[in-house]
Amino acid sequence: MPTRLTRLFVRTLRDDPADAEVASHQLLLRAGYIRRQAPGVFAWLPLGLRVKARIEAIIREEMDAAGAQEVHFPALLPREPYELTGRWEEYGDGIFRLQDRKGADYLLAPTHEEVFTLLVKDLYSSYKDLPLTIFQIQDKYRDEARPRAGLLRGREFTMKDAYSFDASDAGLDASYQAQRDAYERIFARLGLEYVIVQADAGAMGGSRSEEFLHPTPIGEDSFVRSAGGYTANVEAFTTVAPPTRDYAGLTPAEVLDTPDTPTIQTLVDVANAKHPRPDGRAWTAADTLKNVVLALTHLDGTRELVVVGLPGDREVDMKRAEVAFAPAEIEAATEADFLKHPGLVKGYIGPWSPEGAVLGEESATGIRFVVDPRVVEGSGWITGANSDGKHVFGLVAGRDFDADGVVEAAEVKEGDPAPDGSGPVHLARGMEIGHVFQLGRKYADALGLKVLDENGKLVTVTMGSYGIGVTRILAAIAETTHDDRGLLWPKEVAPFDVHVVATGKDAVAFDLAEKLCAEFESAGHDVLYDDRPKVSPGVKFGDAELLGVPIIVIAGRNAADGVVEFWDRRSGERRDVPASEVAALLG
Amino acid sequence: MPTRLTRLFVRTLRDDPADAEVASHQLLLRAGYIRRQAPGVFAWLPLGLRVKARIEAIIREEMDAAGAQEVHFPALLPREPYELTGRWEEYGDGIFRLQDRKGADYLLAPTHEEVFTLLVKDLYSSYKDLPLTIFQIQDKYRDEARPRAGLLRGREFTMKDAYSFDASDAGLDASYQAQRDAYERIFARLGLEYVIVQADAGAMGGSRSEEFLHPTPIGEDSFVRSAGGYTANVEAFTTVAPPTRDYAGLTPAEVLDTPDTPTIQTLVDVANAKHPRPDGRAWTAADTLKNVVLALTHLDGTRELVVVGLPGDREVDMKRAEVAFAPAEIEAATEADFLKHPGLVKGYIGPWSPEGAVLGEESATGIRFVVDPRVVEGSGWITGANSDGKHVFGLVAGRDFDADGVVEAAEVKEGDPAPDGSGPVHLARGMEIGHVFQLGRKYADALGLKVLDENGKLVTVTMGSYGIGVTRILAAIAETTHDDRGLLWPKEVAPFDVHVVATGKDAVAFDLAEKLCAEFESAGHDVLYDDRPKVSPGVKFGDAELLGVPIIVIAGRNAADGVVEFWDRRSGERRDVPASEVAALLG
Repeated sequence: MPTRLTRLFVRTLRDDPADAEVASHQLLLRAGYIRRQAPGVFAWLPLGLRVKARIEAIIREEMDAAGAQEVHFPALLPREPYELTGRWEEYGDGIFRLQDRKGADYLLAPTHEEVFTLLVKDLYSSYKDLPLTIFQIQDKYRDEARPRAGLLRGREFTMKDAYSFDASDAGLDASYQAQRDAYERIFARLGLEYVIVQADAGAMGGSRSEEFLHPTPIGEDSFVRSAGGYTANVEAFTTVAPPTRDYAGLTPAEVLDTPDTPTIQTLVDVANAKHPRPDGRAWTAADTLKNVVLALTHLDGTRELVVVGLPGDREVDMKRAEVAFAPAEIEAATEADFLKHPGLVKGYIGPWSPEGAVLGEESATGIRFVVDPRVVEGSGWITGANSDGKHVFGLVAGRDFDADGVVEAAEVKEGDPAPDGSGPVHLARGMEIGHVFQLGRKYADALGLKVLDENGKLVTVTMGSYGIGVTRILAAIAETTHDDRGLLWPKEVAPFDVHVVATGKDAVAFDLAEKLCAEFESAGHDVLYDDRPKVSPGVKFGDAELLGVPIIVIAGRNAADGVVEFWDRRSGERRDVPASEVAALLG
Repeated sequence: MPTRLTRLFVRTLRDDPADAEVASHQLLLRAGYIRRQAPGVFAWLPLGLRVKARIEAIIREEMDAAGAQEVHFPALLPREPYELTGRWEEYGDGIFRLQDRKGADYLLAPTHEEVFTLLVKDLYSSYKDLPLTIFQIQDKYRDEARPRAGLLRGREFTMKDAYSFDASDAGLDASYQAQRDAYERIFARLGLEYVIVQADAGAMGGSRSEEFLHPTPIGEDSFVRSAGGYTANVEAFTTVAPPTRDYAGLTPAEVLDTPDTPTIQTLVDVANAKHPRPDGRAWTAADTLKNVVLALTHLDGTRELVVVGLPGDREVDMKRAEVAFAPAEIEAATEADFLKHPGLVKGYIGPWSPEGAVLGEESATGIRFVVDPRVVEGSGWITGANSDGKHVFGLVAGRDFDADGVVEAAEVKEGDPAPDGSGPVHLARGMEIGHVFQLGRKYADALGLKVLDENGKLVTVTMGSYGIGVTRILAAIAETTHDDRGLLWPKEVAPFDVHVVATGKDAVAFDLAEKLCAEFESAGHDVLYDDRPKVSPGVKFGDAELLGVPIIVIAGRNAADGVVEFWDRRSGERRDVPASEVAALLG
């Protein structure tokens, strides 16, 4: 039996909903696939649910092929396991917390590392039980500050999350590779372009981490790639530091008047005008050392100021800085911070002054001073002299000042050299659609997951974590395949294989359409049938384009002659075909 | 590829877990189907998930056959819709509430009437769009005070909930019947015994409500049935009142001393000893009018005392009283309540005293007085005289006192007459596995769901609500089909169709088992293969019995002769069969 549009629970909208900012969101709403319930929380209508189910089926098949076994955890979980790993606190405002009637703490789980670990601990005890990879397809919750772009960043979303358990590092490598390969197969089947980029392993304590990014201008992630094959999330990009230089023979640092130069541009202008470079070339922003004050909030709630020194032609990239300073949260220092630290002269901060260092842990202020990798020993800089309207020229790293550390917090720029020597990188935007992650022993350590090895000795299990955003993938496919008339699904995930449309007032067309529906269905195709009696062909075609089934078959004008129109929605080609031959075209 | 026990994520337990009180819970834990995460919250292991998926598939098929369309709502929903229908308050402690980072109120939905109603309102506007029945299979949340019996009363559980929308009452009847028929087909396919009982429509405002109860001694519901076919949940049972009597000529009421008779039994004894019945028969408890003080807490928080008068041979059934007084919450009056109302003389309360009525809305105390339907006009009673150690004899309803109303709050007893005249009822216990419910226009009214009728006039939509507890059904099947050696699934829901066991050390047995697995799989059967190399036959057989796959095929001793053992787990029959013939036995 085909699904009839007269009965299907759907209603198309002519206009784009006001609150939908990206095409996939607009079209999924207009075509009646989803409806918003709350910010970042959606209901699935029959058409949307069909697409989602097909994506899930593909993921399940590939998980099965990779030897992963399906389980299912609740979303509602008790606080204790997350307390043991520290994540109850670490998530901050990012998760939904609640209490039951007895006052016990629960959360709506954002990911399930803890309880998977505990489940394996409950069931298994020997290396012989391993390797094990278990997964679930399940609704997850994150209390995003800014849910956006419909399904692309939701507060309730469906994920496939898998976890691997191995007794050895080599085992983890193999389990990781199996999931990574499965992800490649999944995205290939879904027809979804992706780039695998190095990702930051961050505070998770793992050794290897890669993201599957779908390149798209509306993506929230920035990544780089070089012609030579290097790819990385900008958070994971590592700067190529220039060689250190011999500073013997360099002239001593000199404090010069640079009135009204609180910004790099004003500083460069004044320097070129008043203190030209001895070699005659012009000073550029890259010759200056910019010192940016960040405020860190540590997990225990304490606030710490840190100054980041970086070449003046680069801004601090807050996402890279976030990773660099994790798990602390960061923000730009506030006026209040400056008021508390009168030693920090806004616009004229530097690591050195004639009165002695004002930055660095051993300085009077005790404010940590960390630098970009480009600030190598022997490099000379124009930088603040910690005095209003004054800068110091020719301040040499390693000779005149030392940093408390090196930090990857500067923005990555188009043309920066890839760290593997494969050439300059290009910047692009992408959407994270998958993530594979070697967790290592962090969770097993925290939760006591050990097994007996070949020698009867207890060893801590090493783990991997592998996520795919099901609902995000659906939106990404919609985003990348739509055209200006509507959705346009690849046939692997389309809600129906073929959309049959009967037009006109002539019963012959409807009878033929019914016959074709029956024929297609018995050949194993899922059929949507627009059987609406009093709707104009124009409206029917418009709806067909909006709904996005890739093949449309129209029984209309020429139905009496046994001829139908075959419409390939993707190529746009429409041609008349004898009704008897159309089934063969469905493939 | 068969599922191999060497790789399947499962571990069987020899002993019953301490905290599992019913057989289904014990066995699902022991056989590695589920694991507890928090009170009433469980994770599903691969075997459990397979059974659950099969039950869901059957439900989906029957919903589809009944013309219902699948949608999917989030569990996390905003407060507003539930506020509009009053359920945000009504649920009291029974739901999980939470706030997001902006302080907005949310709940984890226990059922979804509100949002389904709003979704239909969003999409539809004409009677031509109706009838519509939409459903979801989804995880629901209730903050039960006492989660118990494993999956039977959980705090997170999977339900199929369907909602029907019609423009007319006749339409609702048809939609209701379609779901009711689908439920009968579902339970028949699941092999799950059920009784359809009248249920109380209660505060939901609906006109018709039936429960599907699975008769089981561990059920939480009591129901009655008569030989003549009457069935009802005890909450919905209606008492057959005796005929009213003519009280002309009855002797006047008389207050008599009945010292130390605070209970019905002491009262009957003293009455028979000191004040024998004029006709010589003995007084019985049924001759007394017991007046029970209940405290109602109304939705607005106010507390009200109500006295329920009922024959002394019956107790108040708090569940029936709860329904009778809904949506108020009830409890027995406390000492504090009595202290506040000195007119209520504990043990000697009655509707009448020589000084005038102490009960009834028009009395001095103003305490509402409601009576059991058996307290008909002309019936005479021994009851309290509102004075310590005194009762009044021959107090006649309608002559000496009037009640403020009639209430169905007395317990139902074995042998009570069915209200439809079909004979005495028998009491039994059951577990609610399904519920069909005519909601009528309550939700559509509250949320403004109207459509245009044939005449272009706006009419309010009438709705039905239909629930099946998926996880509860799974537990009910386990509970009803298990034996003392383990689970024993009907083949419609078994996690595998056949469990192949290879025993011994001889490679021949394992080779034959592999061959059979491949043969069974290619014939379309799901195969579990116990390929564990060093496990004794006894342990393997014990695990096979515990796991509960209905057919077990053993390649062991006689494998070299091409003979296997075919074990029908249900009948217990084990017989040797040529390996070449065993596939045909799988059916």
